[in-house]
Amino acid sequence: MTRFDGRNNEELRNIKVTKDFTMYADGSVLIESGNTRVLCTAMVEDKVPPFLRGQGKGWVTAEYNMLPSATQVRKQREMSRGKADGRNVEIQRLIGRTLRSVVDLDRLGERTLWVDCDVLQADGGTRTAAITGAFIALMEALHKLVERGALEKIPVKTQVAAVSVGVVDGEAMLDLCYVEDSAAEVDMNIVMTAHGEIIEIQGTGEERPFTKEEFSRLMELAELGIRQLVDIQRQELSHVEF
Amino acid sequence: MTRFDGRNNEELRNIKVTKDFTMYADGSVLIESGNTRVLCTAMVEDKVPPFLRGQGKGWVTAEYNMLPSATQVRKQREMSRGKADGRNVEIQRLIGRTLRSVVDLDRLGERTLWVDCDVLQADGGTRTAAITGAFIALMEALHKLVERGALEKIPVKTQVAAVSVGVVDGEAMLDLCYVEDSAAEVDMNIVMTAHGEIIEIQGTGEERPFTKEEFSRLMELAELGIRQLVDIQRQELSHVEF
Amino acid sequence: MTRFDGRNNEELRNIKVTKDFTMYADGSVLIESGNTRVLCTAMVEDKVPPFLRGQGKGWVTAEYNMLPSATQVRKQREMSRGKADGRNVEIQRLIGRTLRSVVDLDRLGERTLWVDCDVLQADGGTRTAAITGAFIALMEALHKLVERGALEKIPVKTQVAAVSVGVVDGEAMLDLCYVEDSAAEVDMNIVMTAHGEIIEIQGTGEERPFTKEEFSRLMELAELGIRQLVDIQRQELSHVEF
Amino acid sequence: MTRFDGRNNEELRNIKVTKDFTMYADGSVLIESGNTRVLCTAMVEDKVPPFLRGQGKGWVTAEYNMLPSATQVRKQREMSRGKADGRNVEIQRLIGRTLRSVVDLDRLGERTLWVDCDVLQADGGTRTAAITGAFIALMEALHKLVERGALEKIPVKTQVAAVSVGVVDGEAMLDLCYVEDSAAEVDMNIVMTAHGEIIEIQGTGEERPFTKEEFSRLMELAELGIRQLVDIQRQELSHVEF
Amino acid sequence: MTRFDGRNNEELRNIKVTKDFTMYADGSVLIESGNTRVLCTAMVEDKVPPFLRGQGKGWVTAEYNMLPSATQVRKQREMSRGKADGRNVEIQRLIGRTLRSVVDLDRLGERTLWVDCDVLQADGGTRTAAITGAFIALMEALHKLVERGALEKIPVKTQVAAVSVGVVDGEAMLDLCYVEDSAAEVDMNIVMTAHGEIIEIQGTGEERPFTKEEFSRLMELAELGIRQLVDIQRQELSHVEF
Amino acid sequence: MTRFDGRNNEELRNIKVTKDFTMYADGSVLIESGNTRVLCTAMVEDKVPPFLRGQGKGWVTAEYNMLPSATQVRKQREMSRGKADGRNVEIQRLIGRTLRSVVDLDRLGERTLWVDCDVLQADGGTRTAAITGAFIALMEALHKLVERGALEKIPVKTQVAAVSVGVVDGEAMLDLCYVEDSAAEVDMNIVMTAHGEIIEIQGTGEERPFTKEEFSRLMELAELGIRQLVDIQRQELSHVEF
Repeated sequence: MTRFDGRNNEELRNIKVTKDFTMYADGSVLIESGNTRVLCTAMVEDKVPPFLRGQGKGWVTAEYNMLPSATQVRKQREMSRGKADGRNVEIQRLIGRTLRSVVDLDRLGERTLWVDCDVLQADGGTRTAAITGAFIALMEALHKLVERGALEKIPVKTQVAAVSVGVVDGEAMLDLCYVEDSAAEVDMNIVMTAHGEIIEIQGTGEERPFTKEEFSRLMELAELGIRQLVDIQRQELSHVEF
Repeated sequence: MTRFDGRNNEELRNIKVTKDFTMYADGSVLIESGNTRVLCTAMVEDKVPPFLRGQGKGWVTAEYNMLPSATQVRKQREMSRGKADGRNVEIQRLIGRTLRSVVDLDRLGERTLWVDCDVLQADGGTRTAAITGAFIALMEALHKLVERGALEKIPVKTQVAAVSVGVVDGEAMLDLCYVEDSAAEVDMNIVMTAHGEIIEIQGTGEERPFTKEEFSRLMELAELGIRQLVDIQRQELSHVEF
Repeated sequence: MTRFDGRNNEELRNIKVTKDFTMYADGSVLIESGNTRVLCTAMVEDKVPPFLRGQGKGWVTAEYNMLPSATQVRKQREMSRGKADGRNVEIQRLIGRTLRSVVDLDRLGERTLWVDCDVLQADGGTRTAAITGAFIALMEALHKLVERGALEKIPVKTQVAAVSVGVVDGEAMLDLCYVEDSAAEVDMNIVMTAHGEIIEIQGTGEERPFTKEEFSRLMELAELGIRQLVDIQRQELSHVEF
Repeated sequence: MTRFDGRNNEELRNIKVTKDFTMYADGSVLIESGNTRVLCTAMVEDKVPPFLRGQGKGWVTAEYNMLPSATQVRKQREMSRGKADGRNVEIQRLIGRTLRSVVDLDRLGERTLWVDCDVLQADGGTRTAAITGAFIALMEALHKLVERGALEKIPVKTQVAAVSVGVVDGEAMLDLCYVEDSAAEVDMNIVMTAHGEIIEIQGTGEERPFTKEEFSRLMELAELGIRQLVDIQRQELSHVEF
Repeated sequence: MTRFDGRNNEELRNIKVTKDFTMYADGSVLIESGNTRVLCTAMVEDKVPPFLRGQGKGWVTAEYNMLPSATQVRKQREMSRGKADGRNVEIQRLIGRTLRSVVDLDRLGERTLWVDCDVLQADGGTRTAAITGAFIALMEALHKLVERGALEKIPVKTQVAAVSVGVVDGEAMLDLCYVEDSAAEVDMNIVMTAHGEIIEIQGTGEERPFTKEEFSRLMELAELGIRQLVDIQRQELSHVEF
Repeated sequence: MTRFDGRNNEELRNIKVTKDFTMYADGSVLIESGNTRVLCTAMVEDKVPPFLRGQGKGWVTAEYNMLPSATQVRKQREMSRGKADGRNVEIQRLIGRTLRSVVDLDRLGERTLWVDCDVLQADGGTRTAAITGAFIALMEALHKLVERGALEKIPVKTQVAAVSVGVVDGEAMLDLCYVEDSAAEVDMNIVMTAHGEIIEIQGTGEERPFTKEEFSRLMELAELGIRQLVDIQRQELSHVEF
């Protein structure tokens, strides 16, 4: 069966990575996955949050937000609503956790990596695009630290990328766009390393519970997608040794 | 190997359910899982949020919080911090999503079920205990609606319960207490129906990524636990037909 | 005349005190007065607020809140309303002031006692039950400090308890439950020591002003009630020397 | 014994009332009690809060605040602190409750009286000056409603005024200024009607508990003061019939 | 043509300056411009904000607010609205910037001057009256620092005053009152030194764009007004050398 | 004299306008002025704020914000700081006022135009670039309304653009970049129509007051710049009739 946008069920959308999209952040990556566009930046600060001070360890913190114009119906700014958006909070916790799990915080030294993922255009899969792009931005920032001698080696254990999968109209599909996501019976976000190990799984039966068989099929699709995303990252980071 | 508290790896903690723990809520359940204690209440309001008005559909909303004295180190109230706690936000979104997935909102009618999960004592697994207990509280509240003729039948499709599993010191374990949770390499929360179908999976490699084999073992343990939890729910709800 | 719940006008509701109701707080007391149930906890922190630092003095601070399910109509959380509840603010100021007036802050040393009063079920008189229970929780916490040698002697000058009184249908009554409180013409909360001295009086003519004669009668009733509450405290604290 | 500022223990400070202090409010009164200066205004709005709509009843609401420059040490604005000041909250609840107790809300009609008490200079007794002055401002505003035919008669049952009393250095005193208030062992605010009936008593043993004998002496002093305040109000309101 | 209140187009409203209007602030000035009344106070604090610490420099910070009763329709307090008022923010930034531009922060030493402008009555031109009055209050406060030997000389470079001008019904006018301001096609606030140099211009075509010729005419009027305001300031500050 | 980036004093930076930069907003324009990059979007909503309802008039509202990575030092999000940024507030008020002054709100009908200006990269002049770009975005959005027949004609009176000018090292310059802006003695933002009429002037003597001669020179430069900006707008909007 052909999907909404002509893809088959095992196909990712086109991925486009633009490095140095902006000029001030140490790492600045625009990642596009079909119509989804996320600006991922990483900035280094030479201090850590209070709870880590004096331990010689570093920290990685992430924030995620959408521009008001990123969605079909204008999204009110958090500041205008007067309170944090629950979905944003959940996603930025996920991104932060993911990145911290592959960075060796001891080797990072007393530094904070501020990772910002700002969605310029949202067509489904913004959180997974954010993770995949944020990893590149973070590597770029760390690479600069190595280049200027502040670090000897990049303190990252392994590559990490993410993708969404789901069941729509009874069919398991890779990389849902917004229309598919809205209609999905089951929706899952998977974060994996370059070695096919799992860092995070978040699966939700939106419309109905799902079986272990469906789960297995979704995991297969996710692996398929992540293998390609990891390759793309590797090409973009060919100049970086780690 | 024996665990911290004498259990083996496949063993749940003692579950104790006290119904009608408080008197005003339509459903009021204190669920205890070892030292974890969560008060789950469900209250019916005869109106729905603005976005659902006039559609004849109902809504289920959940809030989750901890008392300041529920933890070893006093937890500051959100109001004193001046902002919502990210973890709370994430958990109450999970509970709400879970309950909505088993309630037939069309059959509920223009009503909101307010489900509150307040943690009186936290020794790990508060979110999964909250889900397991909240389901009972919700059923009690719906049962009252049926008894007083407001509903003909309980609009719930299936039972739902949740449990945590994890890998600690290389061993996969069921139902982690706080000490185990803090040391876990991998940590997973599973929400399932009475039929062993998955409603939500949230798995995190806290200390390291994990393999699909580990994942499968954790799923087995989770199923084992949830089967028992579902039985306990069924006993507590033996007076309720659905 | 017999009251709503069968009591005569000079009668307290049944008081039940459960110590060690939860396990982490240094003092943890569930106090029940009829259907009113308040969890009072005291936790010791080894530092003081900025304005007291370096003076060798301690501090006692109190917070008061209700669970959303504690009342007949669900009470919205402060965090969801986005601002503090005026009534809560007023009550926690009262509890803090009361406890500080009987603790010798100089002898306490540079420590803060965090007292939390969380209402699990509200049937009138929650603030006075909170004070009566909080005193026990605070004593338990201080007793632990003495037991582990951190303090030589409990730095408390005298016992303190509180009760509500009021005029309903022209009759002065002790310890109003919610139904009585809602109908009260005059409503008064009295905080007293074991020696019958006054720590705080808050009297309000809800429906009409009141005379000094009424006031005197209410004071008599309050003393009657507080004498019994102080006795109950003494029994619960028989193991504590001060 | 002579007091700090030359008064004897039974003496009020000089009271000065300036009506029409500002031009837009329906009632605008600057009340000065010694160095304490509070601007009390009353403004009429032709609607009521949602909970009263359609009942034909009115409402009185009060707000209390201090200018940053009103105190010896600059007081930070609530907006800059980012949260409401507990003391302000407590005081505005007191003022609102007091005024509502003497206004016949049924006769007021579907109107809200907004009473604002803004302290220009604070030398003790600001809340009691606020009440005494607010009553005059409220009467002025109601008088205008009568004059323009919107009300037939002023819907106020009785006059109300307030004063502070306290025990300083063992001596009971009327109307404490800031220096006395800071040193007070016992501190009490009394709100009374023109007939010597009590509307509100708030007594606190700041430094120590107090006896019933002390309480009685303080009540006597309060009555003495309030009788004079009520006279002053009557003179200021000689043009108003009620 | 004669204006609403009898003035001609080149005429300021009556200015009245009351020094020492309140007693605690180091400088306390009530400035009245027709019916507009602003209390301007300056208080000295012997420390600076974090970003200036240890540099030997001082700081001037301003806050601006209106009492709820200052306007014809009651103005809700920022705290009740739950967020800062955009107009207030803009004005207090203007006042702070203006005062900092004439104070020699290096000579001020590590001190903060807190300038508060609280509008008691608003009939147009509150921000410009605030600036003109705040300068006097600030000078008074600095004069006290000199008198008690904390400063050798007043660290102020030049006098500063402000006035509004505008085009109403096609006529350029000086010092708009509220009725004129509401009807203005063009509205401009000018801040100038005693030497006729510009510190700040804020001009807005409210109803329509305006020409350079109109702009020039408005500047002439503004200069005319500011020259008189500077004279008034000089008389009020005749005892201060700078 | 040659400037920092090789321009002469009368020269604008390169302007680049990318229309349809994102796909959901009715108008979406990326405007680049040298290294400054602002995404300006306009979205139409078919209702108006409460204060305008039922009057048949429309509204234009603007919001302005910077991405955290837009500046050399990461800019904390407003939501994390917990309060609005004063500078943002001031700028969004300016943009809204400017756009409303050229839109005929009566002809717009009961619609709100939401204009969002999000700075992706900030190198000085972000507010003026925002205005110049927002005008194009707004026109694009109105053009779509005309195309689908919702409006007969574009309800805009005239073009509007903005530019900054300033005095740096004694030299008057057009279109300051960040380095120049930081060193500017005088800083001015001018908003003008296509006919050289003034809509808004905001001039500040940052380091010192400035003379009328300097002001005139700055105005000349501003006109020079705005004429070019208006031409660029006209080219970009050649398909739009108004």
